[in-house]
Amino acid sequence: MKISFASDYTRGAHPDILRALNSNNMNQMEGYGTDEICDRAKEKIKKVCGCPDADVFFLTGGTQTNQIVIDILLKPYQGVVAAATGHIAVHEAGAIEFSGHKVLTVSPLPKEQDYSLGGDVPGNDNQLPGDDAGKLSAGALEKYLEDFYGDGNHEHMVFPGAVYISHPTEYGTLYTKKELTDISEICRKWKLPLFLDGARLGYGLMSSRTDVTIKDIARLTDVFYIGGTKVGALFGEAVVFPRKAPTDHPVPVIKQHGALLAKGWLLGLMFDTLFTDDLYFKISKNAIDMAELLKRGLIEKGYRLFLNSPTNQQFIIVDNEKLRDLSEHAGYSFWEKIDDDHTVIRLATDWATTREDVEELMKYL
Amino acid sequence: MKISFASDYTRGAHPDILRALNSNNMNQMEGYGTDEICDRAKEKIKKVCGCPDADVFFLTGGTQTNQIVIDILLKPYQGVVAAATGHIAVHEAGAIEFSGHKVLTVSPLPKEQDYSLGGDVPGNDNQLPGDDAGKLSAGALEKYLEDFYGDGNHEHMVFPGAVYISHPTEYGTLYTKKELTDISEICRKWKLPLFLDGARLGYGLMSSRTDVTIKDIARLTDVFYIGGTKVGALFGEAVVFPRKAPTDHPVPVIKQHGALLAKGWLLGLMFDTLFTDDLYFKISKNAIDMAELLKRGLIEKGYRLFLNSPTNQQFIIVDNEKLRDLSEHAGYSFWEKIDDDHTVIRLATDWATTREDVEELMKYL
Amino acid sequence: MKISFASDYTRGAHPDILRALNSNNMNQMEGYGTDEICDRAKEKIKKVCGCPDADVFFLTGGTQTNQIVIDILLKPYQGVVAAATGHIAVHEAGAIEFSGHKVLTVSPLPKEQDYSLGGDVPGNDNQLPGDDAGKLSAGALEKYLEDFYGDGNHEHMVFPGAVYISHPTEYGTLYTKKELTDISEICRKWKLPLFLDGARLGYGLMSSRTDVTIKDIARLTDVFYIGGTKVGALFGEAVVFPRKAPTDHPVPVIKQHGALLAKGWLLGLMFDTLFTDDLYFKISKNAIDMAELLKRGLIEKGYRLFLNSPTNQQFIIVDNEKLRDLSEHAGYSFWEKIDDDHTVIRLATDWATTREDVEELMKYL
Amino acid sequence: MKISFASDYTRGAHPDILRALNSNNMNQMEGYGTDEICDRAKEKIKKVCGCPDADVFFLTGGTQTNQIVIDILLKPYQGVVAAATGHIAVHEAGAIEFSGHKVLTVSPLPKEQDYSLGGDVPGNDNQLPGDDAGKLSAGALEKYLEDFYGDGNHEHMVFPGAVYISHPTEYGTLYTKKELTDISEICRKWKLPLFLDGARLGYGLMSSRTDVTIKDIARLTDVFYIGGTKVGALFGEAVVFPRKAPTDHPVPVIKQHGALLAKGWLLGLMFDTLFTDDLYFKISKNAIDMAELLKRGLIEKGYRLFLNSPTNQQFIIVDNEKLRDLSEHAGYSFWEKIDDDHTVIRLATDWATTREDVEELMKYL
Repeated sequence: MKISFASDYTRGAHPDILRALNSNNMNQMEGYGTDEICDRAKEKIKKVCGCPDADVFFLTGGTQTNQIVIDILLKPYQGVVAAATGHIAVHEAGAIEFSGHKVLTVSPLPKEQDYSLGGDVPGNDNQLPGDDAGKLSAGALEKYLEDFYGDGNHEHMVFPGAVYISHPTEYGTLYTKKELTDISEICRKWKLPLFLDGARLGYGLMSSRTDVTIKDIARLTDVFYIGGTKVGALFGEAVVFPRKAPTDHPVPVIKQHGALLAKGWLLGLMFDTLFTDDLYFKISKNAIDMAELLKRGLIEKGYRLFLNSPTNQQFIIVDNEKLRDLSEHAGYSFWEKIDDDHTVIRLATDWATTREDVEELMKYL
Repeated sequence: MKISFASDYTRGAHPDILRALNSNNMNQMEGYGTDEICDRAKEKIKKVCGCPDADVFFLTGGTQTNQIVIDILLKPYQGVVAAATGHIAVHEAGAIEFSGHKVLTVSPLPKEQDYSLGGDVPGNDNQLPGDDAGKLSAGALEKYLEDFYGDGNHEHMVFPGAVYISHPTEYGTLYTKKELTDISEICRKWKLPLFLDGARLGYGLMSSRTDVTIKDIARLTDVFYIGGTKVGALFGEAVVFPRKAPTDHPVPVIKQHGALLAKGWLLGLMFDTLFTDDLYFKISKNAIDMAELLKRGLIEKGYRLFLNSPTNQQFIIVDNEKLRDLSEHAGYSFWEKIDDDHTVIRLATDWATTREDVEELMKYL
Repeated sequence: MKISFASDYTRGAHPDILRALNSNNMNQMEGYGTDEICDRAKEKIKKVCGCPDADVFFLTGGTQTNQIVIDILLKPYQGVVAAATGHIAVHEAGAIEFSGHKVLTVSPLPKEQDYSLGGDVPGNDNQLPGDDAGKLSAGALEKYLEDFYGDGNHEHMVFPGAVYISHPTEYGTLYTKKELTDISEICRKWKLPLFLDGARLGYGLMSSRTDVTIKDIARLTDVFYIGGTKVGALFGEAVVFPRKAPTDHPVPVIKQHGALLAKGWLLGLMFDTLFTDDLYFKISKNAIDMAELLKRGLIEKGYRLFLNSPTNQQFIIVDNEKLRDLSEHAGYSFWEKIDDDHTVIRLATDWATTREDVEELMKYL
Repeated sequence: MKISFASDYTRGAHPDILRALNSNNMNQMEGYGTDEICDRAKEKIKKVCGCPDADVFFLTGGTQTNQIVIDILLKPYQGVVAAATGHIAVHEAGAIEFSGHKVLTVSPLPKEQDYSLGGDVPGNDNQLPGDDAGKLSAGALEKYLEDFYGDGNHEHMVFPGAVYISHPTEYGTLYTKKELTDISEICRKWKLPLFLDGARLGYGLMSSRTDVTIKDIARLTDVFYIGGTKVGALFGEAVVFPRKAPTDHPVPVIKQHGALLAKGWLLGLMFDTLFTDDLYFKISKNAIDMAELLKRGLIEKGYRLFLNSPTNQQFIIVDNEKLRDLSEHAGYSFWEKIDDDHTVIRLATDWATTREDVEELMKYL
């Protein structure tokens, strides 16, 4: 079996989770997440987030979570604002539209951002065409809202009803605390709830180049989720509404979406384990360490980075011929072609990646 | 911790499944069910169902499966025909309507059925008011279709587009091969796909009072599913379209419903285990044996059965005072009040119920 | 061209409406109902309803109105409660489900109602099987709500979110002021908005056997509409929220449903005409007078009434042979077969029916 | 009352339509468009389009029509491809998403089009930023499809299921026969039905600068509609599927969308009148003549055109101070601000605009 850096969800669960599962397996539990393990996990999450009044729900996967949270946030005539590269806008097969809502994509302002995110990486002068490296900029968001509520009649348009950002983004990039604060302030000014997709939240929080903590996120957003699927769990996302969820009956909403797990305690058990002894943070840190090891190796070998990601996803530009070789020995994700001879690929480390894994990959690069 | 007969999904997974999971945990797998374990499980299922050309998909839970299968079967202006007691009509929080379709409930014909299903149980002369003990009768279905396509204009009504039955039903009852054949013939005559909800399929197939095999089901229906959540898996339902699914792109449909599991191999692994060495059937048989033991004990103690279920769910009528005692020692499901002093409760055995469990329960009854 | 009593929407508009249309035709008007004629019509409607703070909207047809009002009233996980015979439950092709909501049908209580509605009609001992002659009874509604919020867990069920009644009903029957008050009180007790479908409201208000006024309706319901399509307009329904609509942006909701008429002033102009000099009530009275003339003629000729309707729709039981004759000379609506030899038909009078029309019809009966 | 060029739907209907309505008003008609006037109108439309086997439906307004046609064309997991400026993408309050489908917007290729559409207008060197003057270019469409079906996995994306264009576009621009043929060929190559929104079709067909006939449109598209609301009718759009509609039951689909007009004969009567003696084309020609008169006057007065529209909508750039004056004397549509001192406005002529109207407007410009 060849080594794979294709994604951060190739393996099962952290061994501690399997141990807990083995140990609890034959206990009889209440159904649908009404059990005491779920309660315990929720308490731990509320504590780590610094929001004792939060509502916490557990769901199975990211698309499901985005669909349900957005459906809870929006009125029927509202849409959700996102970067054009946002996961909900591109890679969820229309799950938001399936529940009746438009994704309102925002164009970045010209030349506003330094897409290289630092410039300390030799040879990295790439800019993503037409987007802010996966991020929604506060300036572009404000311009969008000002235009919408500006002179013309907007009653025939989809009203913005919430703002979606992902952190890390689909390009592995991160918001600074300043950027997140700016977006949060705009959202509050315009009375729009801010939703942060944290499918890879651990890898963002443990980046060596971030100044954003989980408490910042709980303070600055209205709802976010802590991804488990990609960070050590078999599956599962923990949705946190730091100041109460805006729904009186989340269970029928979740059920109606086909998302209410009968053995909901499985989700509770996994998050309980992840938030015991900082496991979530420790294993996230591992992915970051391995990504930095990988990045240094890539730069040493002269690879051009497509962009300078501070998290566990690394994007590099590879010669097509080289790529054919690589594909025989290691797994990666195709990202996009940039010219006839070169391709952008994604290499992702995760909670379980070892130094040996990276070294083996480097042999084929 | 007190013993519970509240449902058949109180425990985790059969130990063989946990062993397989432990063993495969650190292997790197393809995402979204495109892996070889899923392929292997599908082959085993196709073989046991006797339908080599089937399309098999794995989903996470019953409501999700019902929503997606029905959405695949129906055109937008069509609804799904079901018994008024059908799970999709009552207990799925509107998941079918959420995807835009009406559940068309069919009233039973008067006095058509022997609701006692045998009459060999002393004291069981109960009839469910207004329904065929959870079953859709062929006669009632045919009358519904004849009325619909009869004299009046039906272009302003919801067209029947598929027929839904559950086997076992929500009341634990079973269709006979004759009944299933009749329904199947009506469906084919009227060109309506027949969908069988098998959330508890194993418990139906292993009943000592059924003449229906899984191959009969594959032959007589157009789509059915093999329930895992209630029969030994952590979660999971295996959808079988015995003669190809009527969709060219199931993946985006599943994704759009928020139901595409990133680590889809988990589902494959659980079904692969369940369909190795007839494990699914063996553990289903255990639930039946324990239900029969329980039923004999209940009759001996003079309990009245609400109806005579041939499967793992038993429904009894309990004096309210007795019930208060019971609730201190054992878990059960409230079903309905039938008068001021009596309540119907459900007691469910499962793949893991032991003789000792039954004996303990009987102590409190 | 043969005479038709098939429905109350066979003709165009009252001549006064055509005159107003001809006269305003070449004036340049604001679009989408923002014009002064709409404003004027709304003021007249608010006055006649005795609710100066009402929100009034104009829509095009009944199904559209039911869909939009119910969508405004309900949260996503809620359904609308209706009689099993309600228009939204049977004859709107799933328009409510299309917008994601379930219609929760309520069974009548046994023997609660006198279906003959008076008993002063010789030979009328018919009872509608399984329903309260099109009406939702307060007792059945209360039982439904008590059962729903009773002992069992209802989080997996569709929550009742509003109550729908039609007045007159689909069977031409009417609620008494007592019945309407009882339903209203139950709705307020359970915090459910009450929605009255008045597609034929004029014919109900002008019945000689009603004690319900339009002000009663405005007082006892939370939203209702005044039907124009069947009462003198080319098309159009005036929705009245007597105490403000529970939506901050009705226009995008209406637009999103494809229901925002570009020349919205057409609706305003028609309702302005109908509510000038009591035209709406006068022409409604004509339909009632003609229906009573027709009913007396039918009884004299020995026809059995299917039920004793106090409004413009009359339902009679006709021998099939007779019916074949009739169909050559006059239009009627097939309602249902009641046995092999007899059929229920509906005969509807309207705002334009003349004494001569009735006399001609009687020739063929 | 001040003169208005704000839109092409400020007035009622062409006098011939009112005459027909007055004359037919008291005739008793079949409901829901099953009458002989609708049949006659459909035959005339099929003849003028040169497609005797067409299916023709009448609907009430443009958004409703776009929603229903697109819902008929698409499978649930598919979206509709459109220019980013397409009406369905921007100005229909999410009506497409309400029915579960995503609008997939296509970015124009850089520098591909001559946005000035001719260059024969002095002073018109404007280019619309980021779009092809409202048009979808064949090249951009093909690139989109090639990218979609290219190397990456697209099963997590919304599949393109149909292509939407408007003709004239929202900017008044027109496709050439060459452009339309190119788009049609791409659609056929990729098996995507092509849908042409003809809300202003007459004004496109009668432009002095078009080489596209209605028969070309019937030949090159799979469905289109002939707008009545903006071209002489009170309301109404005639949907034409030149080679049969891909639905076996259009009526319940239309009903389910709340769009089935009870007095459907009104639509038939209006289109019957419009397609008698070429009325539709003659009155469309009037709007074009008046738009050209207006444009010449604007150029003479030194106004800059925002773009050089060949149809009845003219877009000019006006000094904000001037605009304040104008607004006191005449109606116009705000389009967008282009800088702090200048605004783009739209002036629309229509079937009823007179030479005197244009002259009066010019007084204030």
